[in-house]
Amino acid sequence: MHMLKVAVAGASGYAGAEVLRWLLRHPDVEIGAVTAGSNAGSTLTSIHPHLFGLEDRILEDTTASVFDGHDAVVLALPHGHSAALAAELPEGTVVVDCGADFRLRDETAWTTFYDTPYAGSWAYGLPELPLAEGGSGRHALEGATRVAVPGCYPTAVTLALAPGLAAAVVEPDDVVVVAASGTSGAGRAVKPHLLGSEVMGSMSPYGIGGVHRHTPEIEQNLSAAAGSDVTVSFTPTLAPMPRGILATCTARLVPGTTADEVREAWRTAYEDEPFVHVLDAGTWPTTAQVLGSNHVAIQVAVDERVGRVVAVAAVDNLAKGTAGAAVQCLNLATGQPETTGLAGAGVAP
Amino acid sequence: MHMLKVAVAGASGYAGAEVLRWLLRHPDVEIGAVTAGSNAGSTLTSIHPHLFGLEDRILEDTTASVFDGHDAVVLALPHGHSAALAAELPEGTVVVDCGADFRLRDETAWTTFYDTPYAGSWAYGLPELPLAEGGSGRHALEGATRVAVPGCYPTAVTLALAPGLAAAVVEPDDVVVVAASGTSGAGRAVKPHLLGSEVMGSMSPYGIGGVHRHTPEIEQNLSAAAGSDVTVSFTPTLAPMPRGILATCTARLVPGTTADEVREAWRTAYEDEPFVHVLDAGTWPTTAQVLGSNHVAIQVAVDERVGRVVAVAAVDNLAKGTAGAAVQCLNLATGQPETTGLAGAGVAP
Amino acid sequence: MHMLKVAVAGASGYAGAEVLRWLLRHPDVEIGAVTAGSNAGSTLTSIHPHLFGLEDRILEDTTASVFDGHDAVVLALPHGHSAALAAELPEGTVVVDCGADFRLRDETAWTTFYDTPYAGSWAYGLPELPLAEGGSGRHALEGATRVAVPGCYPTAVTLALAPGLAAAVVEPDDVVVVAASGTSGAGRAVKPHLLGSEVMGSMSPYGIGGVHRHTPEIEQNLSAAAGSDVTVSFTPTLAPMPRGILATCTARLVPGTTADEVREAWRTAYEDEPFVHVLDAGTWPTTAQVLGSNHVAIQVAVDERVGRVVAVAAVDNLAKGTAGAAVQCLNLATGQPETTGLAGAGVAP
Amino acid sequence: MHMLKVAVAGASGYAGAEVLRWLLRHPDVEIGAVTAGSNAGSTLTSIHPHLFGLEDRILEDTTASVFDGHDAVVLALPHGHSAALAAELPEGTVVVDCGADFRLRDETAWTTFYDTPYAGSWAYGLPELPLAEGGSGRHALEGATRVAVPGCYPTAVTLALAPGLAAAVVEPDDVVVVAASGTSGAGRAVKPHLLGSEVMGSMSPYGIGGVHRHTPEIEQNLSAAAGSDVTVSFTPTLAPMPRGILATCTARLVPGTTADEVREAWRTAYEDEPFVHVLDAGTWPTTAQVLGSNHVAIQVAVDERVGRVVAVAAVDNLAKGTAGAAVQCLNLATGQPETTGLAGAGVAP
Repeated sequence: MHMLKVAVAGASGYAGAEVLRWLLRHPDVEIGAVTAGSNAGSTLTSIHPHLFGLEDRILEDTTASVFDGHDAVVLALPHGHSAALAAELPEGTVVVDCGADFRLRDETAWTTFYDTPYAGSWAYGLPELPLAEGGSGRHALEGATRVAVPGCYPTAVTLALAPGLAAAVVEPDDVVVVAASGTSGAGRAVKPHLLGSEVMGSMSPYGIGGVHRHTPEIEQNLSAAAGSDVTVSFTPTLAPMPRGILATCTARLVPGTTADEVREAWRTAYEDEPFVHVLDAGTWPTTAQVLGSNHVAIQVAVDERVGRVVAVAAVDNLAKGTAGAAVQCLNLATGQPETTGLAGAGVAP
Repeated sequence: MHMLKVAVAGASGYAGAEVLRWLLRHPDVEIGAVTAGSNAGSTLTSIHPHLFGLEDRILEDTTASVFDGHDAVVLALPHGHSAALAAELPEGTVVVDCGADFRLRDETAWTTFYDTPYAGSWAYGLPELPLAEGGSGRHALEGATRVAVPGCYPTAVTLALAPGLAAAVVEPDDVVVVAASGTSGAGRAVKPHLLGSEVMGSMSPYGIGGVHRHTPEIEQNLSAAAGSDVTVSFTPTLAPMPRGILATCTARLVPGTTADEVREAWRTAYEDEPFVHVLDAGTWPTTAQVLGSNHVAIQVAVDERVGRVVAVAAVDNLAKGTAGAAVQCLNLATGQPETTGLAGAGVAP
Repeated sequence: MHMLKVAVAGASGYAGAEVLRWLLRHPDVEIGAVTAGSNAGSTLTSIHPHLFGLEDRILEDTTASVFDGHDAVVLALPHGHSAALAAELPEGTVVVDCGADFRLRDETAWTTFYDTPYAGSWAYGLPELPLAEGGSGRHALEGATRVAVPGCYPTAVTLALAPGLAAAVVEPDDVVVVAASGTSGAGRAVKPHLLGSEVMGSMSPYGIGGVHRHTPEIEQNLSAAAGSDVTVSFTPTLAPMPRGILATCTARLVPGTTADEVREAWRTAYEDEPFVHVLDAGTWPTTAQVLGSNHVAIQVAVDERVGRVVAVAAVDNLAKGTAGAAVQCLNLATGQPETTGLAGAGVAP
Repeated sequence: MHMLKVAVAGASGYAGAEVLRWLLRHPDVEIGAVTAGSNAGSTLTSIHPHLFGLEDRILEDTTASVFDGHDAVVLALPHGHSAALAAELPEGTVVVDCGADFRLRDETAWTTFYDTPYAGSWAYGLPELPLAEGGSGRHALEGATRVAVPGCYPTAVTLALAPGLAAAVVEPDDVVVVAASGTSGAGRAVKPHLLGSEVMGSMSPYGIGGVHRHTPEIEQNLSAAAGSDVTVSFTPTLAPMPRGILATCTARLVPGTTADEVREAWRTAYEDEPFVHVLDAGTWPTTAQVLGSNHVAIQVAVDERVGRVVAVAAVDNLAKGTAGAAVQCLNLATGQPETTGLAGAGVAP
């Protein structure tokens, strides 16, 4: 088939590098321009030495003209930068944004958590999202030319809990989520608390009290699944590992629901999904089993004593949590098979 | 002063070794017998090569006569083994049990979670526990000759959340806890999922659905703080670090309570405690900051949007979570200053 | 093209699982039988939960008849088991052995380090090995039906140092190697010193004094590069990471040789190699940059003060160090392009 | 006894914090001023939250007058800053410098590796150093008022190899050392390659080719042990752990020497040392066994095949490698028992 020429804007960060790692494996993609901000002019591999195969690439400035002649552009920019660039790109160019700018449909939710102007919303890039009205998030992505890739935490939490809300076996209020993320989720910014010396061997929370920016996106997704407003107590924690999110999510069981009905809700939601796996009863998801892959591992159980369902999901925050999802959306947008270039198991042990 | 002669029963495991590490630092303790089960006959340092200063010690069989002439015996045995041994020890000998056998006051709670006969309950070794009726858990320990050291998770969860229950600023029902533990919490048993190859870089839950044995102990403590029955949804997870527990605990805010009132409840509960520290607002506890120490770091915040309090505690599961607490109880039981041999900061970075 | 039907014997270990991970990505391979020893009868994913896509597979007993109808069989068995099985497989079946049994050409070297009978030697699976007589190890592998995959340490050490020996810019005697390996190199055996609790945060040597079994294989390879006998002081160490080898190798500089000549020897040795990369001066190889990939990163420098060359290589012990090499050899043996199914960058950060 | 009032200059870095951690445990020390450079004015615990017990301390500017009235000052400053400050401190004040400024006795060695003027040399703070003429480095430290604490690598390498040189069982030329260090050795500076995301799961070398600044100090120490010039090929590597150094050191065996003679040389060198331990044959040092302690674990073996001795030492780079040594020197300088405040086992697992 025609090779898609794909550029990456913001290739000096971890998300941009991971997009390139996936594009290198994609059989129908030719990697075009790679751009950066302050790192423009450097070689790509001076910053990302693992990208063998792209040793000759120089990071260019992120200006619209650089993307002329590309079929698609993946944006991996700091939040607040995507709208201006996207406005200058041709309508027919597929733009897939890994940033937050176009994820939220509610302007108030945006302005409560972000300090830049609201930019609007694009097709939301979570094909597997089970919807209250039936169907999934996939339909909105087929043939889309503007796609907002979900945040890493929202991907994990949404996939963990949405089946129970869509099937009305858990209550929509009083959802509690505690999630652990690897350090790459904090990006490549150099801050003392992200130094290896401080991170290794240490767990810590951050954003206690519902202040994390991913909260409204989680609520938006779970509300779409429930068909009614869902509010979430969300506490993110930092774990001593480079990659991976483990999201532990609990919601109150709808009285009278059996454990079998719960399990069936999850099983049917994902039975045809290539990347989302409800594990056999008695086995627990690990972030190791999805490392470097586009897979999601999920388990769900009922705590009868307290009347709560506990659902846990493991994802790779940079893969299915960001760049793998971007490529999955790119496939849907450009009419290729959804799994092209995304197959393959996680790197374990 | 008179040197206390202290023995350790079950010194081949991680808990027993950690008790010895603390006793080595105690100015008023002489280390007596060290015993083991299947490892009896081996040198102590062939199993625990970090215990410099005890290179000449041979692990003896765990039989009562070995403990003749000791002022105190610390038990670090598999559950179900403490009662028989304790029955053979003189009443005047101080016995401090790091195991679960004598922690639960309710026989039904024991039999629901354990497979050995109920042994009764001893003075509960959490001096800092704020009680509903006022005061703390300290009084019961002064001069006690039989003490049950709390489990590591119950220590972290209880200290995190009890102030709010004792002050009636959070609701006693619908408590949700997700806690991450380092791998030493699983002991020295060799199982594939505890191999370094499988653990490093990986987070995973275990015991999803309220089945962890520490659940009734957590509920017992929180109920003592609240003065009414507390039920808890508890999910433990395994984190890629050798030591440390980070417990993220949420409970519903009593309507009308302000954030200042919440903060004040925690501050006053621990203002005179030498080992429990409520951090300055805006800073988060890390397990690194308490590594190898008897300190506990706590933070609390209110999530107004969802009406929940989030309290987080960091402890070293083997130190304040087990062996440090054992020495603290030993001090209280024998009339020494409570902090003797326990001072000192965590090993960071 | 014709799909190759490939079986894996010994799929319950880390090496076997990694072979499957690579075969899943290979466009021209159909995965056939997967077998095990004591784990026969279990599902593959109960042991290796990351192998999504093979959830339906049951581990069969490792008997020759299981492999009927396969084009190739990859062996990942404990040492001493390959010969008997290989003898029962048809001559035309390509057999690629990840074990040690057929690596050594010298019977005395074998019997000095191993306790099972000498089985002979097969084509040695290191295509990139520069030979004293010119050319590389590739020729012997094209069309071979029996191939011995190199050990992980020998791969790293040989690729690091062989160019200097082949170009006669370093002396063949007095080679000193210290290498650090991730814990997966020790396999999936459960031993206390391999527990996560003991490994995380810890470096330790093992096999001090030249007793590691990979020593004669390293000497065999370096001797082939030098055209004369090379002896090596080899000390392996265990590093707190699941995967990766960093081999630091030093040899005495041939007097009068310049740093440029040294660098040129390495550059020319690998200039046409797709997987072996001599890094730009001033950058250092990291095991992270090759994680999960078939790439090798190498740097070399001259220490003029002491007259030694220092060459360092980073490989993934399970990938290029074992399973990636096995697939590379399979490609060469079956006439496919050597890089088929092996492209792609490491998983970083 | 009289409490010593001790200040720490440069308390915002890892070395300064570790000095404070040890001083907190010292029974005869009162902690005086704590100072910093750009962090002056901040609270100490905002930077080092593990230092419970010092929550009220504010970092002062590092000016000489701050240290009035102190018995001793420990310097933990960037290199090049110690001389000017020390010149302003009273001669009778004990000054212990954790930096490099006063370690080297040879001006040329200094100027080859450092870019600031040569400041001279002070008493060298390695009491256990076995000297060629007999005796140890301890004598020079008793009653000293100016002490240079050794570098972390030199401590590990010197203690590993010096016994063999002092006993003339290994050759002084052609020493090869490869050492792995935890990341705290690189300090608290924020650089991308020290981020947790890049460090965890990764080994890498740095300073290939004999360019590391600790090289001349290692050679100075080993030459003092040998009684003749020793040159060393030294390659440092970065390991994925916060603390710890594992130094693997090899030297050529003096022909005709037996393995027993080698072992005896090491045993006798350290038989009376409280902190340096030659392990039983067949056991290997681990950095975990000395974590947070002032102990050093050493093993030595002979590789008869190649005629080399391999000696390996494990130390905690911040403890015995820096701050523990500083306190040990402080004890010797002020006439206290050498081990005061330094006893205690490492934090393992």
